Amino acid sequence: MIVVMKRGASPEQIQHMIERVEGLGLKAHPIYGTERTVIAAIGEKRDEHRQSLESGPGVSEVVPILAPYKVASREVRPESTVVRVGSLAVGNGIVGMIAGPCSVENYEQTVDTARAVKEAGATALRGGAFKPRTSPYSFQGLKEEGLKILAAARDETGLAVVTEVIATEDVDLVARYADVLQIGARNMQNYRLLEAAGGSGKPVLLKRGPSATMDELLLAAEYVLNAGNPNVMLCERGIRTFESHTRFTLPLASIPYLHERTHLPVVVDPSHGTGHASLVAPMASAAIAAGADGIIMEVHPDPEVAMSDGFQSLTFYQFKETMEVCRRVAEAMGRRIVPNEGG
Amino acid sequence: MIVVMKRGASPEQIQHMIERVEGLGLKAHPIYGTERTVIAAIGEKRDEHRQSLESGPGVSEVVPILAPYKVASREVRPESTVVRVGSLAVGNGIVGMIAGPCSVENYEQTVDTARAVKEAGATALRGGAFKPRTSPYSFQGLKEEGLKILAAARDETGLAVVTEVIATEDVDLVARYADVLQIGARNMQNYRLLEAAGGSGKPVLLKRGPSATMDELLLAAEYVLNAGNPNVMLCERGIRTFESHTRFTLPLASIPYLHERTHLPVVVDPSHGTGHASLVAPMASAAIAAGADGIIMEVHPDPEVAMSDGFQSLTFYQFKETMEVCRRVAEAMGRRIVPNEGG
Amino acid sequence: MIVVMKRGASPEQIQHMIERVEGLGLKAHPIYGTERTVIAAIGEKRDEHRQSLESGPGVSEVVPILAPYKVASREVRPESTVVRVGSLAVGNGIVGMIAGPCSVENYEQTVDTARAVKEAGATALRGGAFKPRTSPYSFQGLKEEGLKILAAARDETGLAVVTEVIATEDVDLVARYADVLQIGARNMQNYRLLEAAGGSGKPVLLKRGPSATMDELLLAAEYVLNAGNPNVMLCERGIRTFESHTRFTLPLASIPYLHERTHLPVVVDPSHGTGHASLVAPMASAAIAAGADGIIMEVHPDPEVAMSDGFQSLTFYQFKETMEVCRRVAEAMGRRIVPNEGG
Amino acid sequence: MIVVMKRGASPEQIQHMIERVEGLGLKAHPIYGTERTVIAAIGEKRDEHRQSLESGPGVSEVVPILAPYKVASREVRPESTVVRVGSLAVGNGIVGMIAGPCSVENYEQTVDTARAVKEAGATALRGGAFKPRTSPYSFQGLKEEGLKILAAARDETGLAVVTEVIATEDVDLVARYADVLQIGARNMQNYRLLEAAGGSGKPVLLKRGPSATMDELLLAAEYVLNAGNPNVMLCERGIRTFESHTRFTLPLASIPYLHERTHLPVVVDPSHGTGHASLVAPMASAAIAAGADGIIMEVHPDPEVAMSDGFQSLTFYQFKETMEVCRRVAEAMGRRIVPNEGG
Repeated sequence: MIVVMKRGASPEQIQHMIERVEGLGLKAHPIYGTERTVIAAIGEKRDEHRQSLESGPGVSEVVPILAPYKVASREVRPESTVVRVGSLAVGNGIVGMIAGPCSVENYEQTVDTARAVKEAGATALRGGAFKPRTSPYSFQGLKEEGLKILAAARDETGLAVVTEVIATEDVDLVARYADVLQIGARNMQNYRLLEAAGGSGKPVLLKRGPSATMDELLLAAEYVLNAGNPNVMLCERGIRTFESHTRFTLPLASIPYLHERTHLPVVVDPSHGTGHASLVAPMASAAIAAGADGIIMEVHPDPEVAMSDGFQSLTFYQFKETMEVCRRVAEAMGRRIVPNEGG
Repeated sequence: MIVVMKRGASPEQIQHMIERVEGLGLKAHPIYGTERTVIAAIGEKRDEHRQSLESGPGVSEVVPILAPYKVASREVRPESTVVRVGSLAVGNGIVGMIAGPCSVENYEQTVDTARAVKEAGATALRGGAFKPRTSPYSFQGLKEEGLKILAAARDETGLAVVTEVIATEDVDLVARYADVLQIGARNMQNYRLLEAAGGSGKPVLLKRGPSATMDELLLAAEYVLNAGNPNVMLCERGIRTFESHTRFTLPLASIPYLHERTHLPVVVDPSHGTGHASLVAPMASAAIAAGADGIIMEVHPDPEVAMSDGFQSLTFYQFKETMEVCRRVAEAMGRRIVPNEGG
Repeated sequence: MIVVMKRGASPEQIQHMIERVEGLGLKAHPIYGTERTVIAAIGEKRDEHRQSLESGPGVSEVVPILAPYKVASREVRPESTVVRVGSLAVGNGIVGMIAGPCSVENYEQTVDTARAVKEAGATALRGGAFKPRTSPYSFQGLKEEGLKILAAARDETGLAVVTEVIATEDVDLVARYADVLQIGARNMQNYRLLEAAGGSGKPVLLKRGPSATMDELLLAAEYVLNAGNPNVMLCERGIRTFESHTRFTLPLASIPYLHERTHLPVVVDPSHGTGHASLVAPMASAAIAAGADGIIMEVHPDPEVAMSDGFQSLTFYQFKETMEVCRRVAEAMGRRIVPNEGG
Repeated sequence: MIVVMKRGASPEQIQHMIERVEGLGLKAHPIYGTERTVIAAIGEKRDEHRQSLESGPGVSEVVPILAPYKVASREVRPESTVVRVGSLAVGNGIVGMIAGPCSVENYEQTVDTARAVKEAGATALRGGAFKPRTSPYSFQGLKEEGLKILAAARDETGLAVVTEVIATEDVDLVARYADVLQIGARNMQNYRLLEAAGGSGKPVLLKRGPSATMDELLLAAEYVLNAGNPNVMLCERGIRTFESHTRFTLPLASIPYLHERTHLPVVVDPSHGTGHASLVAPMASAAIAAGADGIIMEVHPDPEVAMSDGFQSLTFYQFKETMEVCRRVAEAMGRRIVPNEGG
C-alpha cells in the first residue's frame, strides 16, 4: 500500500500518517519526492480496513499494491487446476464443452437436447431448473421436477449435469441431482450462497457478474475455495457496457488475464455474452483461440418457442457446426476437446 | 411488441411470424413498409417468452413497447407513495435523511453517531450489522449483536433504524430489530431475498445494482410489491462506468426519470455513489435539487479508523454542515426535511 | 511513479529496473516488501515515455503518482478562474446561464429565442452554425450565414454568443462572429483544433468527450492553455454508459471533483446530458446545487419541428420555469446568476 | 419509425402526431393497442429531424426501425469488399497482418522493425509520424521526417505503409507517402477529416472511437464512402468500460456483427485493445477465429525504451510467435494470411 500525501501536506500530517500506518502493524517507509511525499506501507496484511487511511489529514489517495486474493492466486499455486467430474474435464489444455437448454421445460425437450449435444461432442449438459428471472412474470423454472429430468438425461446419455442454484436453502437439493453447481451472474456476490456451494462437495461454475472486476470475481471464488472446495471454474459471460447491439459485451481478454493471475480454469459463455444466436459460433471459437478451458452454450430443439432465451439458443444443427469449428481451433492451439465416451 | 423483419424476408417468413404471434394469443398487425415489413403484436401479456420470436426465420429484431413492470408503475397508481415508519417519512415532498456508520462497530460508536446525526436533523439511523464484503478477509459485521446495538441506539434517540439483510434465513431476525430492511446493491436481483423481505411486514429500501437498468430495478421492486408489501423505497447509489476518480458514477437523472415512471419514493446514497467524503455534501444537495425523496449517508466519529468505508464517511461536523445546505436546497425546491421530534 | 515488480522478480531484474529509472533522470528508491519489491521513482518529469518501463523484465505494473496536467491544476494556481466576455461571466460564485437553439435554423427562430432567453434571465446565447452530425444525411448547419444570424441576435439582445467550431480552418471565421468558441465533445481530443482555438484570443468552452476521463479532459484544456489562452471553461455534458433511458449519463460529481483539482470553471449541459426535455430542469438545478459555474441549455420556439435535438429542447415557457428554480437553488447555495443588463 | 404514444394520450394528441408524421412526407399508420397507441411511419427518408417528434404532445418515445447508414450496408451491397494496396490485401477470406512501431522514432528503429515483421510474415507496416497524444508534454511524432522514414522502409521491404493522419491540412502530405491513411479513434467523428481522407484517393483504415456505437462507426465510414472512396477498412480497437485491468475492453463480437451489417472488412487492433503485450497474441488469434479480416499490432525492437506505448508493444521474437499461432488459427477457419512477396 502506498499512501500518497497531498502536495503541501505538513510535516505533522506526514508524521500522523506514519503513525497510523505503524498502528496497523505495518512498516512505514516515507519517500520525500520533489512534489509530494508518499508513504510505502510494508507488511503482509491485506485487510480493507487500511483504505480508511484515505480519510487521514493531508492524504491524497491510497494505492494498493498487493492483489487482494490469496488462495486463487497463481503466485500461491503455479500449477493449473483441472476440474473433473463425470464426463466433464476442464483445464490445463482440455476444453470442456457444456451445452443444453436455458430452461428445462419438459422431459422430451431436455433428453432430446442432451442426445443431440452429446452426439455433436459436448462433454456436459447444462439446463436450468431454478431460474432467476428479471421479471416476476417470467417462467421461474420447474424446480425439483427439472432436476429430476436433468438426472434422467444424465442416465440416458452419461453427460455430467451443470445446473444453477439460486438460494442457500436449495443447495442440498440441487447437489443431490447435479454434478456441477452453477452460481449465476446475479449471485456472484451472494456470499452466503458462495459459502454454501463451497461446502456442498460439488464443483462450482462461478459466473462473473456483469459489472464485476477481475479482483471481485477472484475474491468471490475465494469465498468458495475457503469453504474447502478446490473445484472452482470461473465463467466469463459478458459485462454491461454502452454497447446495445449485443446483450452484453464479451471481453475475451479476461481469459489470458485470468490465466496469468489464477490457477483456476476459465469457461466462456458466448450465448449470454452476445445474446444473438448468429454471434455464438464466432465467439465460441474466438474464446478457444484466446485460451478458454471450456465453453457453455445454450441449445434448444426449437429456439423460436423456447420458454427463455430463445434468441440466443442454437438449433441442434447450428450446435453441430459450432462444435466442428471449435474442434479445429482447439487443435490449432494445441489443445483438445475430449470426446465424451459415456452412454 | 414490434417484430421487425429483415429486408428481403419472404412472404412465407412473414406469414410464419404472423402465425407465431397469434399463437401467443396476440393480435398480429403487419405493416408493409418501403424497405421492410414490421408486425405489430397487440395484446396485454408481457411475458418474456415472446422475445424468443427473435429466433424466427427472417426476423431482424423484436422491439418491446410496453414497460415490463406493472404494480410499481405510475400509470397504474398515479399518487406518489409515502413511506412512514417511526421517525422516518419519505416521499411526496418530504425528504427523509438517513445517516449513520457503514458498520456497527460497538455500542459507543453507534450511539454517539446516532446522537450526533439526530442533533443535526437526521430522521433515521443507518448501520450495518450483517456486512456483505467483497473480500472474505474483511470485517463481516457484528451480526445479532450489531442489531441489538442498533435497537439500543433507537431507544436512546427515537431514530428509526435502517439496516441491511443479506440472506433469506436472516430476514426474521433482522425484522425483529429493524424498522426498515435494506436490500443491498449486490442483492438487488436475489429474488428469494426480495420475496422474503416483501413478506416481512417491514418497509424495504431497495438499492439499485451497479449495472442494473431502470427496468431491472423496477422489476426487482415488483418482486417485493407482489409479496404484499407496498412500502418500497428505491435507492440510487451509483453505477459502474469507466470513471475511476469516483467509486461509482452517481446518475441523478434517475430521480426525475423514476418519478415519471413510478409512484415509489427515490432515495439517493452519495456516500457509495462517490466514494469520497469531500464529494458527499455537493451530491447530497444536488440529489435534493433533482427531486430526491431521501438521502442516506455514512457518518463516523473518526472515519480514519472506521472498520469499513472510512474514505467516504463524514465526520459529525461535516454531517452537520451537509444537513444545513441540504435543508436550504430543500426549501428552495418547496420541499422539507421533517425535523425529528423523537427521544 | 512507482514501479511494482512481480513477486519473485530476481535481484538482476530489480537492478535492471533501477538503472532504467535512473537512465530517465529520476532518482530510484527501491523498497523491499515482504511479498514484492517496488521502486519509487522520484523527480519532476511527467512524460508518458516512462510508462514503457512496464515492459521491463519482472515488472508487474507502473503506478503514476503525479497528476499529468500542470497549468490547469489548482495546486499551481489556487484562485478560481473567472471567465468574462460581454454579457457572460462564469466562475467563482457567478453562475452563467447559456441558452439557445441546438442549430441556428433562420433569423426569426434565432432572434426570437435570444429575446425569450434573455427575458428569462439567460446571460449568453448558444446556437450551432457548424454542426458536426453523426449522420452525413442530417442537417449540417447554415455555416457562415448562421454566424451572421447569431451576430445579429447579439446586436438585438446584447447577449454574448457561444458557438461551436469544428475545424481548424474555420477558427478565424468563427472567431470573427463569436464571443466564445465551443469545442464539441467529438473534438475534445482534436489537438490541432484545441491549439488553434487556444490561439484565437477568444474564450473557449471545452466539452468533455463522452468517454474522456477527468485527466484527459484536463490535458485537453492544457493544450488550449498552453497556446496562451487562460479563458477555458470546462463543460460536463454526460458520458457513455450502459444506461439507455437517458441519452448520456450526466455525472455531476465531476463538478466538485474538478473544483478540487483545477481552477477552471465548470459548466454543465443538462440537455445533451439527459436527452429528454423533461429531465433538463431537475438536472440544471442539481448541477447548480453541486457547484456548477454555468449551465448551457437548448431552447427552441417549437421543439417538435426543430431541425436537430428537438427531443431535448425546452420551450420558452419551460425555460422560464427552469430559470426560476435555478435562481432559487443558486441563492440557497450562496451563489448568483447575474441578470443580463444588455440590449 | 414507430411513434409510441403515452398511455392515456388523447385522440387529439394522436391526430396531431399523425399529421406531424404526414407533414414529413411519410405515411402514418396508427395501431390502437389495448394499452397504448403506436403510429408506424412508413417511407424512405432517414433524416434525424424526425426524432424531434419525441417532443410532441402525448408522445412516449420514437423507435427507429431502419438502419441509419446506406452505402456501407450489406443490404445494399451483399458482396464483401476487398481492399488491396501494394503488399496488403484485406477482406473476404484474406487476413492482412499490419505491424510496426507505435511511433516512428528514427530510421534504424523503423527499418529494423519493418524487416523483422516482414520476415515473420506481416503484409504491411504501421508506424506513426503524426501522433495525437493525450498529453501536450508527450512526444508528438517526427511528422514529415517520419513519413520519409516510412517510405524508405517501404523501399527496403516492399511493405505497404499504414500511417495516421490527424488533421485535414495534413491529408495531402500524408497521402504522398502513405499507402493507407489511418483515422485514429479520437478522430472517428472528425467529419471534415473523414471527408478529406475520403477525397485523397488512398484506402482508409477507420478506427472505432472508444465510445462509438456500431451505427456511429458505420455512419463515420459513410462520410468517407460518400466522398467517393470505396476502400474503407473498419478497425475495432476496444471500447471504454469499467474494466481497468486492460487499457480498453476489446469486444470481438463486433466482427461477426459488422460482417452481418456491412460489406466492409474489419481489422482488429489487439495492442490498443488490451494495453498489455502479454495479452496481444491471444487476442490476435481470437480475433481471427471470430472472423477478423486483418490484425494491426505494435512491434518495437526494445519496447522498454519505446517513446510511446512500450507496454503494449511486442518484441520481434514475440511477434514471430504471434504470427505463427495466427496462421494456424486462420487455416483452421479456412482463411489465409497472404505471405508477403515483396522486397
